[in-house]
Amino acid sequence: MRNTIGNIFTVTIFGESHGTAIGAVLDGLPAGIALDEDFIYAQMDKRKAKGNISTKRREEDKIQILSGYFQGYTTGTPFTILIPNNDVKSKDYEKTKHILRPSHADFTAFEKYFGYQDYRGGGHFSGRISAPIVAAGAIALQILNARGIHIATHIAQCHDIKDTAFLLDDIEQQIQKLHSHEFPVIDQNIGKRMIEKIENSAKAKDSVGGILESIITGIPTGLGQPFFDSVESKLSHLLFSIPAVKGVSFGLGFDFSSLYGSQANDAFYYDEKVRTKTNHNGGINGGITNGMPIQLKTVIKPTPSIFQSQETIDYHTKETIQLQLQGRHDPAIIHRACVVVDSMLAIGILDLLLERDLECAFHNNKERNHTTCE
Amino acid sequence: MRNTIGNIFTVTIFGESHGTAIGAVLDGLPAGIALDEDFIYAQMDKRKAKGNISTKRREEDKIQILSGYFQGYTTGTPFTILIPNNDVKSKDYEKTKHILRPSHADFTAFEKYFGYQDYRGGGHFSGRISAPIVAAGAIALQILNARGIHIATHIAQCHDIKDTAFLLDDIEQQIQKLHSHEFPVIDQNIGKRMIEKIENSAKAKDSVGGILESIITGIPTGLGQPFFDSVESKLSHLLFSIPAVKGVSFGLGFDFSSLYGSQANDAFYYDEKVRTKTNHNGGINGGITNGMPIQLKTVIKPTPSIFQSQETIDYHTKETIQLQLQGRHDPAIIHRACVVVDSMLAIGILDLLLERDLECAFHNNKERNHTTCE
Amino acid sequence: MRNTIGNIFTVTIFGESHGTAIGAVLDGLPAGIALDEDFIYAQMDKRKAKGNISTKRREEDKIQILSGYFQGYTTGTPFTILIPNNDVKSKDYEKTKHILRPSHADFTAFEKYFGYQDYRGGGHFSGRISAPIVAAGAIALQILNARGIHIATHIAQCHDIKDTAFLLDDIEQQIQKLHSHEFPVIDQNIGKRMIEKIENSAKAKDSVGGILESIITGIPTGLGQPFFDSVESKLSHLLFSIPAVKGVSFGLGFDFSSLYGSQANDAFYYDEKVRTKTNHNGGINGGITNGMPIQLKTVIKPTPSIFQSQETIDYHTKETIQLQLQGRHDPAIIHRACVVVDSMLAIGILDLLLERDLECAFHNNKERNHTTCE
Amino acid sequence: MRNTIGNIFTVTIFGESHGTAIGAVLDGLPAGIALDEDFIYAQMDKRKAKGNISTKRREEDKIQILSGYFQGYTTGTPFTILIPNNDVKSKDYEKTKHILRPSHADFTAFEKYFGYQDYRGGGHFSGRISAPIVAAGAIALQILNARGIHIATHIAQCHDIKDTAFLLDDIEQQIQKLHSHEFPVIDQNIGKRMIEKIENSAKAKDSVGGILESIITGIPTGLGQPFFDSVESKLSHLLFSIPAVKGVSFGLGFDFSSLYGSQANDAFYYDEKVRTKTNHNGGINGGITNGMPIQLKTVIKPTPSIFQSQETIDYHTKETIQLQLQGRHDPAIIHRACVVVDSMLAIGILDLLLERDLECAFHNNKERNHTTCE
Repeated sequence: MRNTIGNIFTVTIFGESHGTAIGAVLDGLPAGIALDEDFIYAQMDKRKAKGNISTKRREEDKIQILSGYFQGYTTGTPFTILIPNNDVKSKDYEKTKHILRPSHADFTAFEKYFGYQDYRGGGHFSGRISAPIVAAGAIALQILNARGIHIATHIAQCHDIKDTAFLLDDIEQQIQKLHSHEFPVIDQNIGKRMIEKIENSAKAKDSVGGILESIITGIPTGLGQPFFDSVESKLSHLLFSIPAVKGVSFGLGFDFSSLYGSQANDAFYYDEKVRTKTNHNGGINGGITNGMPIQLKTVIKPTPSIFQSQETIDYHTKETIQLQLQGRHDPAIIHRACVVVDSMLAIGILDLLLERDLECAFHNNKERNHTTCE
Repeated sequence: MRNTIGNIFTVTIFGESHGTAIGAVLDGLPAGIALDEDFIYAQMDKRKAKGNISTKRREEDKIQILSGYFQGYTTGTPFTILIPNNDVKSKDYEKTKHILRPSHADFTAFEKYFGYQDYRGGGHFSGRISAPIVAAGAIALQILNARGIHIATHIAQCHDIKDTAFLLDDIEQQIQKLHSHEFPVIDQNIGKRMIEKIENSAKAKDSVGGILESIITGIPTGLGQPFFDSVESKLSHLLFSIPAVKGVSFGLGFDFSSLYGSQANDAFYYDEKVRTKTNHNGGINGGITNGMPIQLKTVIKPTPSIFQSQETIDYHTKETIQLQLQGRHDPAIIHRACVVVDSMLAIGILDLLLERDLECAFHNNKERNHTTCE
Repeated sequence: MRNTIGNIFTVTIFGESHGTAIGAVLDGLPAGIALDEDFIYAQMDKRKAKGNISTKRREEDKIQILSGYFQGYTTGTPFTILIPNNDVKSKDYEKTKHILRPSHADFTAFEKYFGYQDYRGGGHFSGRISAPIVAAGAIALQILNARGIHIATHIAQCHDIKDTAFLLDDIEQQIQKLHSHEFPVIDQNIGKRMIEKIENSAKAKDSVGGILESIITGIPTGLGQPFFDSVESKLSHLLFSIPAVKGVSFGLGFDFSSLYGSQANDAFYYDEKVRTKTNHNGGINGGITNGMPIQLKTVIKPTPSIFQSQETIDYHTKETIQLQLQGRHDPAIIHRACVVVDSMLAIGILDLLLERDLECAFHNNKERNHTTCE
Repeated sequence: MRNTIGNIFTVTIFGESHGTAIGAVLDGLPAGIALDEDFIYAQMDKRKAKGNISTKRREEDKIQILSGYFQGYTTGTPFTILIPNNDVKSKDYEKTKHILRPSHADFTAFEKYFGYQDYRGGGHFSGRISAPIVAAGAIALQILNARGIHIATHIAQCHDIKDTAFLLDDIEQQIQKLHSHEFPVIDQNIGKRMIEKIENSAKAKDSVGGILESIITGIPTGLGQPFFDSVESKLSHLLFSIPAVKGVSFGLGFDFSSLYGSQANDAFYYDEKVRTKTNHNGGINGGITNGMPIQLKTVIKPTPSIFQSQETIDYHTKETIQLQLQGRHDPAIIHRACVVVDSMLAIGILDLLLERDLECAFHNNKERNHTTCE
């Protein structure tokens, strides 16, 4: 609960934006996993602020592994990641600490913590806490990749500009290609237009949001549970933990509302394994994976930190004031958020996969011949 | 995990559609709550199949309270609800048990449980399990109502027909009125058109889905946590546990994607308490309630049980067959789902409220003067 | 938490001594387990009140399996056990509800539940709640037995009479023999003396307690975790949940205090597998099973319900009164408690074993050659 | 689970004896607690190796608070403690890594982690991990002390030497005095004899263990739950997490076995509040605190690291060898363990107290007049 998530593989996060360090403790990681540290850094790089379309705060994000890792392998005991905070300009926040930035967590932080919150840079609410999540996700991803499970997220929509969609026919190569792009879109020309859009909104002292589309391939059948631990429940729980996420949908999502059942149903057929002709349900039936790719969408609201003058109030005096934001802020986070979504998905899927391994381990000792576990 | 949800107030569900009984165990319920059993039955009634727009299976849903309730009050020990299954026609399912109904959980149940699942009527995957959830929610709701918190859900969209939206100005009366309607829409004339749409799709051997819009009023500030126990995370986890839910969004949800930050931000002002001029964030900032109503949307896919002939396969032979569904099925569940959504929200909000009570209890013994807890 | 225990295999208990029914929900049970219902009833029989040395309340303990069981196999969904209460004489308790029986939970129940507790027969505090635990344990035991793991508990000491100890040389046969005895001691002659002791203390309107010794054989290495999920932590947590248990020790237990390290250490040797010459640590090193039998002791205090006149107070008036107990009570529960201890151990060991299965499943796909998982 | 414990107040531990650092993440700590850092260091000092009766490894145990602490107060977000490892001589362990030290976790670590464990200095099994537990406990203790709850542990028995017992009449002063003693015994003369005993056993290349007796005063009524979250269950779970603990008992503990009920029962009387004449049940009835001091005993086995030659085997070759231990080891840890026990108890009691606060907060808004919550 609170800052720990997961049943079998658990992640505990800690830290504040302008504190000494942020980090995560991973528990339930199997012993004997060889880690590729370069991959972790490559993932961290995707999250980093870059160019004109991100904040000027540039953190090195040097990772220290404090425990659970010995001679190049995980040990099976708690795996602790520490990321020091370096590029901190806390003075920026002192003057404005009682000023409630619209759509930020300033007001709720005051209410929640009775005035004791670390108000510098969003404190524990900061998107900066997503750095240890990306590191944790990078470790989960390595285990999944080795099992043939791949995860990718692209910006399906930035304001009014839409990327082309994933194509199931050629999905593995599409994923590989997407991961090689610096800006996470399938069509690079559309990506350029999105970057332009972000730059323009920054010039207008404004910000934009968008829709991220994710796909998870190579997923075995049988992950998840009916009801409370449905794949949708577990993944949405993680995705809504990302600041700025305000909607999550699976398969056709909200488009289901205007279809008839006869249009929406996915017909089963058999071709080496059981498949469905369409994937409207996004790879999940009754909360459980059916072996088709998991497909989902996440909406990211426009970043609330804009440089236009905004009306708001002072928490203590309750007086109305005009807020003119200072400091360093992102005009959009959709491009940085893709790897955070991938990481959350990896954390959730690894937990579900380990639970499924257990069921298969038990079943494989038994006689009945439903060979659903590979 | 699996069939238990909640941190402080927990709900454990059990049962199969055609088993002896279904039910729930509620733990963490405070001692000394006087319950209105009529209210529980009124809620159960809302979920019941009725008229031409629902299945012909008519369960009496007589509730037995087995424990945790003594002389008209909760005792503080596990509160157990039992609902016997009576109107069961299991023979319907025997012939078709290997036939994988499209977009149903038949296939994933086989994979998950290696062929040992109770395949009758969807077994543990059945929407029937939502009956004990409604009973549990009715108990949570009574506690919330007594604290001035109200929850309501209407069908915002049935296929292509849209209901009018909630109006924050007159919300309490609108909620009360909505709860008095047999068909859960704000505008009864629109409701009639929706019923017609459902009847027509039933005649066409088809089904429809829709979008449900919910509101939670009277909510104190400070509920929820940053990250993993954000209000959005907790509520979406519960909502995605409802069979047929494929999308959940808060506030403007997916409409955030095409707005600028300057359009999306909610400006703070003060009028007796801190408020926001708009409620685009749906009452939640940084995962925590800001005192404005919680507003959210849930998409329900069209019920997959349709009477048109459908192509599918046999699980064992893998051969393609034409499926002609028999039995009793709903051409739409959106109207029955509203109370299930209300119930899930009540379960989640009560858990969050009890956690908040604890923080306030601790704080009220301390000196600093942030009187955010009433 | 509260009434749910376990990580992977969880048990939720509910019910009051004089309520409609008591029961348990088991979750995480693998699908496809064929259950021997006779074995469950045989276990229930061991717990039943019998002869002159137990209460006159005689419950039939008819078990209803409400869910999770289909065509003779577990389904993998919540397995619900219901045991109706029949032989209830609630009037006995009405007159004395404010009288605080010494060393009973009457006072703490008042404090805990603010006067809303079901005070009849101990309510939710009653030893009667151990009936669903025995049923749950019987299911866990069947799974363990099929894996070659056996559990047994005998009365090592009843007041001043001591049974002979387990002998590791011949342990499997000794366990089998012990399970065939109606009174759970190794030496039947000593058992007769214990029964006499209990009868005599009953005649003297008094009660006795004792020490139970348990053994778990056939246990693989590698169960448990360092620190918070040590085998000792998990098993003691369960054992201290049994009313009347006031001490738990492993291996030499409190006798360790007067030994030197050179006397206490268990020397390793190899004979087909790694073993230790002595088993002073009770099969557990660093919180983890070493493959030797788990050995532990549990102390049961004398039953507090005695028929001698006792001084106490009225909860409301706070006045001193002489209490003369009425009703039906046990002069000893040590003989009935053995199967409850076995059941709690089975519940805990199954949870640990499933967790270990998971680790082995993951490891067996890897290259390094430490074949510690069978 | 695994390395996280607690329901409302949770502690997650991490680290290895010879890794970069060890530490703990505390979650659920209320916001606004002013901490006395000197008190934390004073507690850490009690755990430190000292004089001739401890290992020669001398760690400075400098604590870094990484998060959750701002301007001298807790913030309500995860509170992270980091303790770097400095005085590490890892070469000592390289030569002996396959040699299974008797009664150590070497063998079970190999089995558990398939050879991937950090074998240096016991790795994650090391008693060194109790350092962050003491730091965590020091924070919990400050909150408890401010609420009038005090905890103390003395060496009741070191080998064959027994300290005088706690006296309830004068307990608060006795506790204060005990905390001022460098060697944690009530009678300092007996303490000198214990130190002599430890020194002598060290000279004989041997080690000793003992029994620790703890008391918790000022505890409100109503903490704990019947069954799985009984005070005994929760506290024993924590205590058995301490390496070397092999037995835990409450009140009279194992001495209950030879008493009659008439001797064992605690008679209630009233003097300003409800009390019992004796405290045989150690302040707990039915798993719940009755307001009398909690009293309990913990047995610590003799430290397995002795310098005498011992027969054992090599994990890989399975050959018998004579082990002559090198390195730095404790001839006894009973004196260092007292503060670890205090810390574990503080962690458990704070969790129980916060849960109780919640019940009281809810109840205080209600009418019935059972004023059990202060």
